[in-house]
Formats: sequence, structure tokens, C-alpha cells
Amino acid sequence: MTKISNAAAIDKKDYPNGNKKKDIFAIEEFCADRQDFLTKILTDFEDHLTEKAGHFLGYHVNLDLNHLMDLSPLLRFHINNAGDPFKDSSFISVLDWFGQLWEIEKDECWGYVTNGGTEGNFQGLLLGRELLADGKLYTSRESHYSVFKAARMFRMDCIIIRTLTTGEIDCNDLREKLCLNKDKPAIINLNIGTTFKGGVDNLDLVIKTLEECGFSNDRFYIHCDAALSGLISPFLEQLLSLNVKGRLGLQQDVKCFDECSILERSPKDAGIESMLNEMSFVVVFERPPNPEFIKYWNLSCEGNMTHVIAMPHVTVKMLEDFVNDFVQERNIWYQCGQIQPPCLAKEIGTSNCCCSIHGKGGLQNGN
Amino acid sequence: MTKISNAAAIDKKDYPNGNKKKDIFAIEEFCADRQDFLTKILTDFEDHLTEKAGHFLGYHVNLDLNHLMDLSPLLRFHINNAGDPFKDSSFISVLDWFGQLWEIEKDECWGYVTNGGTEGNFQGLLLGRELLADGKLYTSRESHYSVFKAARMFRMDCIIIRTLTTGEIDCNDLREKLCLNKDKPAIINLNIGTTFKGGVDNLDLVIKTLEECGFSNDRFYIHCDAALSGLISPFLEQLLSLNVKGRLGLQQDVKCFDECSILERSPKDAGIESMLNEMSFVVVFERPPNPEFIKYWNLSCEGNMTHVIAMPHVTVKMLEDFVNDFVQERNIWYQCGQIQPPCLAKEIGTSNCCCSIHGKGGLQNGN
Repeated sequence: MTKISNAAAIDKKDYPNGNKKKDIFAIEEFCADRQDFLTKILTDFEDHLTEKAGHFLGYHVNLDLNHLMDLSPLLRFHINNAGDPFKDSSFISVLDWFGQLWEIEKDECWGYVTNGGTEGNFQGLLLGRELLADGKLYTSRESHYSVFKAARMFRMDCIIIRTLTTGEIDCNDLREKLCLNKDKPAIINLNIGTTFKGGVDNLDLVIKTLEECGFSNDRFYIHCDAALSGLISPFLEQLLSLNVKGRLGLQQDVKCFDECSILERSPKDAGIESMLNEMSFVVVFERPPNPEFIKYWNLSCEGNMTHVIAMPHVTVKMLEDFVNDFVQERNIWYQCGQIQPPCLAKEIGTSNCCCSIHGKGGLQNGN
Repeated sequence: MTKISNAAAIDKKDYPNGNKKKDIFAIEEFCADRQDFLTKILTDFEDHLTEKAGHFLGYHVNLDLNHLMDLSPLLRFHINNAGDPFKDSSFISVLDWFGQLWEIEKDECWGYVTNGGTEGNFQGLLLGRELLADGKLYTSRESHYSVFKAARMFRMDCIIIRTLTTGEIDCNDLREKLCLNKDKPAIINLNIGTTFKGGVDNLDLVIKTLEECGFSNDRFYIHCDAALSGLISPFLEQLLSLNVKGRLGLQQDVKCFDECSILERSPKDAGIESMLNEMSFVVVFERPPNPEFIKYWNLSCEGNMTHVIAMPHVTVKMLEDFVNDFVQERNIWYQCGQIQPPCLAKEIGTSNCCCSIHGKGGLQNGN
């Protein structure tokens, strides 16, 4: 079919007289004081965003960005260095910082600062495909959607691996599927923190599995998607090493984990199913059936589950308000126990499930 | 070969004691006043960037970004809406603006704000491949490197088409190559302003060529890379339509073109080869042989050519300084005419060439 993307509308011959353009530009032109108008729009938007941040719980987005204000004088410059970051010393420092954090020698690392996790996955998986052109991509079913998108974009065969209840890749399933495809190299995506449950894949076990299946060093490539926990994991490994990140930074990390344990405990006490992975700051709950509730707390949902993520902007007060709201609304949704909430045993394990079969199953003020 | 990307260095079992980390973090930790230290770094960097902007001539980068300072209060918010922009009204307004500019009806356009031209090309060409899975990609040899990168990333067969002296796609060559590949659909990348010369491909002629070669509407897709001139072209079509963009905006555009004609004329008067395409703000020159000169004026080069781009931050004073510097240095490089500068007839046409065969050929103070 004929498809012409946006810019193609610039057609020299048949260009109309621009009447429609007047609509949008007239507003700008006739605004008595354009600067006042702009200031009002920006202030309103700022107020709106500030209000919204106070109940933003369900995405891996840190809204505690006040420190970025120090960088505002740089907004008026264009500081992107297209090309290889090793050609400009001011950018090497970012990679140095991460190299030291992750204990990688200078001549053993290369990279650039992407616009986000999706671009990081694209780049990492593309490198794998360029090295092993006919390789098959293996990734767990709980991987970020960008991994599956990359497979389609880069025309790679993608083999989906089952997960454990924690969200971690199931190495028994991986082994079976590797054995079925021994004739092709393996490009493996691992998760250092899955999007939904914060599950961490076991790199050692994956390498052992590859070796046991007969994949030699030159026939596999591993990309780790560490968008969720990559920056936190090195500190967790050495939680008494105060010299590493500095006291303030570490306090901030510890705060997240304190909050998570509050967040897991309180709802359980009220009979709400929840799960917190070891060393994770993601708590998984049963999915609230009310779209308004989901929208207000900015929750993301998958199947029967939702999750709350203790990013640095999240306060104990916000979590307490959330839990109270959840408990109160839940009594309405499930008519104080007349209706049973869904069972999450399959998704988060029987030990975390509070349904009538696996757990206490009751609502706080229910029957 | 075994390749494990950065994040894989998080290894639970063999994690060293973090001595190396101390190096980088110790500086932060023991800095007497961290905020002062940070302020000094930022101020120095700002001064460095301000100085550099005063002789930044060779890239399509607008350094006149003071208006962005109005947006600085928003730096402390995360306002990216992952997903479809049509799901959030605050982002639709950007697309509305462009839709009206390019005369596209609301139900005929879709898009999102990319991080730059490269991502725009990736998205546009990927859509083409998804619609016409076995299509061949046609693009002129003067296309941006991201187009060739996309072909490799997305595993598309890429057929490179010759260009005219202006940088525009050569439709005779396109016709020949389309005829050789009639059995496959055509995915065509066109340039609304080539990177180096600012050449604009003729969309009407390309569509006519496709039709003449027997490609029906359902067997071709056209992506236009309008990163250079897409925003300016609609205004050029109606340069007396003051109501369209507003006086200030239009003055700014006109300023660019005034500057370009100064920039083309002055060097020619001094016997320097140069070319300015119709309605373009890119002037092509012979490549200076001195790397220091290239670095100082931030020029980009290709073969025997360099170019200067009259972005909004470029002043007449900057251009005059550049031309004077060029003329003066050129006398040194070519020893006042003892050495002949390279002939650019092939690259920019004989009428623009000032070499000893095609033009005046002399240096300003030469023989």
C-alpha cells in the first residue's frame, strides 16, 4: 500500500493557501503578552505534575529529581557528542564511573549513555546479533517488552523461556530449549530485575547450563538488562561498605528497602496477597478491580497482578495512604468478603497467597 | 565468542572488595563542600560551552537555545509518556502543531516525538519494512548515515542511488534500478535536505518514476527524512504569508537566508569554490587542509568538501570572521597560488568551481 510519512506532505505543487495554519498560529500572534501566557501554561503544568507525583506508585520512575535543577544552566547548550564517546573526554567520565562501580577494567568496557532501558536493550542485543549472525535469542517470558520488540526489529528468532514464581528465568526450561537448538549459537537476554516482580536471573547458573549443553565460549553471547536493579545491586553486595557510595546515598537505598518491607507486611496483615523478592524494591499485589483506583495511584497491571515500586520519591506517608485506601476500597469491591478476590498462588506462590484456599483469605472487616 | 555486556559484571559470588571504587567515590566523599565543588564544575563547563558556541559552524545544530531556559522548572519532573502519544492529550498538541504546519488531517497522521533524526529514520523505515516485508530499500548515496544503519539493523536489502550535483536523488538512476527489481516492493527514503549539501529530493518526480516503472500504490512506501529542512520548507513556500509563523519567526528564517547569500558571495569573490542550493541554508566549500582550522570552526568534511550551516545561533559577524580567516589561511596553505587547491567541479558543478580550469582559480593575493 502507498504510505507516505509525515514530512512527505511538503508538496511544492499543490500547496494550499494555509488557512488552517492560521488557527494555531493566530493564538500565538494575538496573545497580548506572550511571555505571561507561556508562564501561566508552565506554572499550571508544574502544579499538575507536582500533584500527580504525590500518588505515583506503579512505575520504575524516580520522580525525586530536584538535584537536576543544578543542571538547568546547561539546558541552553547542545552537548550531545554524536559518535564514539571515547573521542570526547567529558563523556568518558560517565563510563569511568560505571566501570569502577561494576569493577570493569577500562580496556574491557565500551558503551554510551542511552535515552533509556529500551535503547540499551536494542544496542546490547544488536551487538549480539552482529557477532553471531544466525544466533537464536533466548529470553524469559517476564522480560521487558523491548526485548521482544528487538527480536522483531532485528529479525532474530526468539525462544521464550518459562520463569519461576520469583520472576527469575527457569534454567531447566532453558536447558531443554538450548538442547533442541544446538546447531545455532545462543544470544541470551538476562534480567537483573524483571519489570514486574524485580526477579534477578542467575548468571552463574545460566553459564553453567550453556556449558552443560555444549555451547563453547565462541557460540554464546549474554546481554544483561539491568535497567531496574543494575545501579543498586553493587551496593547491596556490600551493604556495610559505607565508603562506597557515601552515607547519604546509602541511606537513600536503605530507605527504599525499609519501605518495601512495610509495604509487604501491612497488606498481608489485612489479608491482601503480596510478594517481595529478596533484595528487591518491588512489591506485587492482587490487581485492584477499579480502574479509577489504578489511575489515581498510577499502577501498572499484568494479568491478576499489580505492583508498587519504592522509588526514591516515594515516602512512608504515601505508602501508608495507599495501603489504607486499598484496604478500605477492597471491602467495597469484594462486599466485605461476600465476593472472593482472585487467587494469586500461581503468580506469586502459595506462601504469599491469602485466598480462601491458600491463606487467611479474609478481608479486614469481612466475615 | 563469549561476550557479556556491562551489567553482567554484577557477580554475586566473586565480587571483589571494592578497593577500586574508593578512587572515584573518595573524591566526592572528602570534598569539603560538595555543592561548591559541583557549582565550580558546572560554571567552568558553561563558560567552555559558551566560548565554543562562538565558532560552531559546521553542523546542523542550533545553539540558540535560550528559550529553553523557560522550561527549566520542568527538569525536576519525568514527563515521558511511554506508549501511544494519542493516549495523553498533553502530547497530542505537539503532533497537532506539526499536522497543521504540514496540512495533514488529524485522522491521517500518527507519530511521536523522537530523540532526533536518527530515531525518526529508524521508525519511518521500520514501518515501511513491516508493511512491505520483502521490500527493497532505495536511498540516495548522499542520505544520512542512519539510513544505511537502519538497513543493516533491520536486515533490509539496500540499493544505493546516484545523486545530481545539488545532492538531489538522480531519478534516471532510480528508474534503472527499480526496473531491475520489479519483483519486490519498493521502500524509498527521500531527503528533504541532504546532510551535506541541503539538497531536496523531488517527491513528485519520484512518484512519477515509480508509476512509470509499474509499481502500483500497494507496492511502494515512501519515508521522507526531513530532519534538515522539514520545519523550514512550509514557510519557504509562502515567504510573504506573514500570518503563518508570526513576524519574529519569519524574520529569523529570512536572516538565515540572507546570511547564506553573504556566505556564498564573499568567498567566491575571493576565488574560493562554494555552492548554495536554492532555498537552502547550507553553503558547501572546498575542504580546508588544516585540521586545526577545521576543529576551531567545528566543520564537518566529506571528501574534498566542507560546509557551513547558518543555524539561528550563527551571526553575520561569525560568518565574516570565518571568511576572513579562511581567505587569510588559504594563502598560507596554498602559498599564495603556488599550489593549486583541489578542483570541486565534480562535487559542486563547474559553474561553482573556481579552480584554474573552471573558474578564476586565483587566490586573493596570489599570482
